[in-house]
Amino acid sequence: MAKVLTPQAEDFPRWYQDVVAKADLAEGGPVRGTMVIKPWGYAMWELVQAELDRRIKAAGAKNAYFPLFIPQSFLEKEAEHVEGFSPELVVVTHAGGEQLAEPVVVRPTSETIINHSFAKWVQSYRDLPLLINQWANVVRWELRPRLFLRTSEFLWQEGHTCHATEDEARAYALRILSEVYVDTMRNVLGVPVLVGRKPDDEKFAGAAATYTCEGIMVDGKALQMGTSHELGQNFAKAFGITFQSAGGGAAEHVWQTSWGVSTRLLGALIMCHGDDAGLRLPPQVAPAQVVVLVVRDEGDVAGAARDLAAALTASGLRAELDDKVATSFGRRATDWELKGVPVRVEVGPRDLAEGLVTVKRRVGRVVEQVALANVVEAVTVALELAEQDLVTEATVRREQMTVEASTLDEALEAAGAGVAKAPWDLVRGQPLGGGVTVRCLQRADGSIPLASDEPDLIAFLARAY
Amino acid sequence: MAKVLTPQAEDFPRWYQDVVAKADLAEGGPVRGTMVIKPWGYAMWELVQAELDRRIKAAGAKNAYFPLFIPQSFLEKEAEHVEGFSPELVVVTHAGGEQLAEPVVVRPTSETIINHSFAKWVQSYRDLPLLINQWANVVRWELRPRLFLRTSEFLWQEGHTCHATEDEARAYALRILSEVYVDTMRNVLGVPVLVGRKPDDEKFAGAAATYTCEGIMVDGKALQMGTSHELGQNFAKAFGITFQSAGGGAAEHVWQTSWGVSTRLLGALIMCHGDDAGLRLPPQVAPAQVVVLVVRDEGDVAGAARDLAAALTASGLRAELDDKVATSFGRRATDWELKGVPVRVEVGPRDLAEGLVTVKRRVGRVVEQVALANVVEAVTVALELAEQDLVTEATVRREQMTVEASTLDEALEAAGAGVAKAPWDLVRGQPLGGGVTVRCLQRADGSIPLASDEPDLIAFLARAY
Repeated sequence: MAKVLTPQAEDFPRWYQDVVAKADLAEGGPVRGTMVIKPWGYAMWELVQAELDRRIKAAGAKNAYFPLFIPQSFLEKEAEHVEGFSPELVVVTHAGGEQLAEPVVVRPTSETIINHSFAKWVQSYRDLPLLINQWANVVRWELRPRLFLRTSEFLWQEGHTCHATEDEARAYALRILSEVYVDTMRNVLGVPVLVGRKPDDEKFAGAAATYTCEGIMVDGKALQMGTSHELGQNFAKAFGITFQSAGGGAAEHVWQTSWGVSTRLLGALIMCHGDDAGLRLPPQVAPAQVVVLVVRDEGDVAGAARDLAAALTASGLRAELDDKVATSFGRRATDWELKGVPVRVEVGPRDLAEGLVTVKRRVGRVVEQVALANVVEAVTVALELAEQDLVTEATVRREQMTVEASTLDEALEAAGAGVAKAPWDLVRGQPLGGGVTVRCLQRADGSIPLASDEPDLIAFLARAY
Repeated sequence: MAKVLTPQAEDFPRWYQDVVAKADLAEGGPVRGTMVIKPWGYAMWELVQAELDRRIKAAGAKNAYFPLFIPQSFLEKEAEHVEGFSPELVVVTHAGGEQLAEPVVVRPTSETIINHSFAKWVQSYRDLPLLINQWANVVRWELRPRLFLRTSEFLWQEGHTCHATEDEARAYALRILSEVYVDTMRNVLGVPVLVGRKPDDEKFAGAAATYTCEGIMVDGKALQMGTSHELGQNFAKAFGITFQSAGGGAAEHVWQTSWGVSTRLLGALIMCHGDDAGLRLPPQVAPAQVVVLVVRDEGDVAGAARDLAAALTASGLRAELDDKVATSFGRRATDWELKGVPVRVEVGPRDLAEGLVTVKRRVGRVVEQVALANVVEAVTVALELAEQDLVTEATVRREQMTVEASTLDEALEAAGAGVAKAPWDLVRGQPLGGGVTVRCLQRADGSIPLASDEPDLIAFLARAY
């Protein structure tokens, strides 16, 4: 098989670019840093979205939609927030042929405009908790874009909530982290994420605490895949979101959370599971879970392949038929490998004469001869195994790449090639260098600390995307 | 029951504003003409979206995503297109703290940026037809916004396709019109739309032909609910989209279509079915199809209501429980009427003592006493009838409001109060005035003309939103 991709070991960033292009996932747009998401990439996003959306709704949040344009003055109401986002803002000064009285920014995130509405929506304790989610595009100007990982415009969901107490807000931020994000990442995307608290200097701009999910990629670098924030009362005070409590008395400010994941998750799928032949998709987010290929159009082959594809579809799988025999079989097989389809069923005249087809798994390249009558069952089992194998592989790799360090030098060395696990007291306040950052903090038992100055915390260090 | 809305007969536009506000559908955003879609309104949109998306995919189109920002020069490549959209453009000149080398516009529609990609994607007849759809926000600056009907930013889908021949492009534009738009509008939204061809001076900017679906609202005005365009080779020539045909020879320009519907469909739902008590939602797009109300929390009432809501949910319906007895029963009943929930199940102590509950249909205000064991069946039937009654009512009203006119004066008079149906030859080229426009052209047999100069066409005239 001809190599269509730069090998990972030779140049991982180049491999990533190659896969994104050759698997038809995305391409750069004409305006700096923007991205066109092509049908195969977008279908992956729709599947990820549906899984997230179901869990977000199960956690009680309701979807809504807020405007793209935010008055510039809104951002200035929360000091850390405006400082964090100013360098990336896109500003509109003219619209409809006229100069605007006040410039507006294109939303980089929607805390400010959503809290402007929340101040009207929340009056009493009966209006709490207020749990809102939005699916939207956001814009943060990027000078060094990388498709899916860092683009001037990206797609995401952002949740925004109001609660009566700090404890409730904290519990909800952590509930979203575990029931929505970690669950989707581990059990749908097959990425065994590190979960912890960001050190204070890595928090979201305006947050009281940021909790994070960090995936470890094939090259040993970390990718921040999703964050959930406690906002305290910072935005509530800036926007005047108050409620009358059940007991009466003076109005109180609400306690808030916000949380988001984006099309960056597709970057994680690519870089956590891909190999030198291309993508390897977890079945739950594969636009086609199985493709039935006509090897050569002879005798009954095309008809048998069509029937198999129909039977697989009828069994509830996302199945495609590839009967484009004008293109060589080898080229088509390579393309489906590139696109990461978990299982291929190859129908050729010789096998078919014996009532057999070949079932090939993308992960582990397992090959079986299967009788026609057993194909649906064999594919169903193969998909189950494909999913397990991907998670196992990623989990083992993460463990192998994680080194316990007992000095700062050891930690920095380990973090140069993978993940270093070191006492937080050893790392805290030290200059790190070499692109290494503290990705998250955990307690010794692996649980999430509620403050970054708890005793005996563990820091995970790595280079990151 | 206290009137919470301005009566329709008194002031229809005011009634509309009242419903949108009081049913918690949407509110204005802080930047001129923008809109916040609140959870109840957004849930309606999600249901409409899902129905459209399923049909769009069944018609073979694949979803993708293209950038929000378009280089200004792209719009200038198609002369009619830039002329049509220039007055409404939002222009960005600064981003990331710097002046842009070339200003970019925020997409008012995506023909230009999508065709920029298509020019790369299409090389040979094997790449055709290329059938792409996008769900996105678009921006057209509005000086006189009305929520859902005309806002500076709105949500929509836009389809864009390339075909080898003019006939294929025309057939696809008409297929989308009937299989996606008319089918959804009639059979999901319950709106019996007029379908026809736009006169040439009402075409989309840059199109060769525009086909339209026009709903007739309670006040007799028309609402353009969706359009499908043949673009001919106009954009293909402007963007250089060519293909090598199967027979070889010189590269040929593709033939294209584009088509879209937007959050305006929610405006149609409100204005086609609403009454003086609020919304009346077709069951397929009702965020709650049935609500179970606890009349008074006495004895077994709350438990029985909870069980009924669970049984209705288990049967596959979108059911809600309203046990918020801190609010008066009358107030809650009024709120659910406002929000247009098709069926209410009221559980009170007196009825319950006899094993009965009250099932009320929003449409026609039909009331039945139903035995507990029969509630799921009764609600299922009530929903079926509610759907039929809405369509029947809208169809009868449209017929009653449509007047056949044989002179221009008659046509203008009829169109001042409803819909005038008049020979196209009578109307064509005549000044109309009074806000009346030709909404669409049909052949005498009701079919869609393929040119606006076919003989004996019928014109439908009305005032419009």
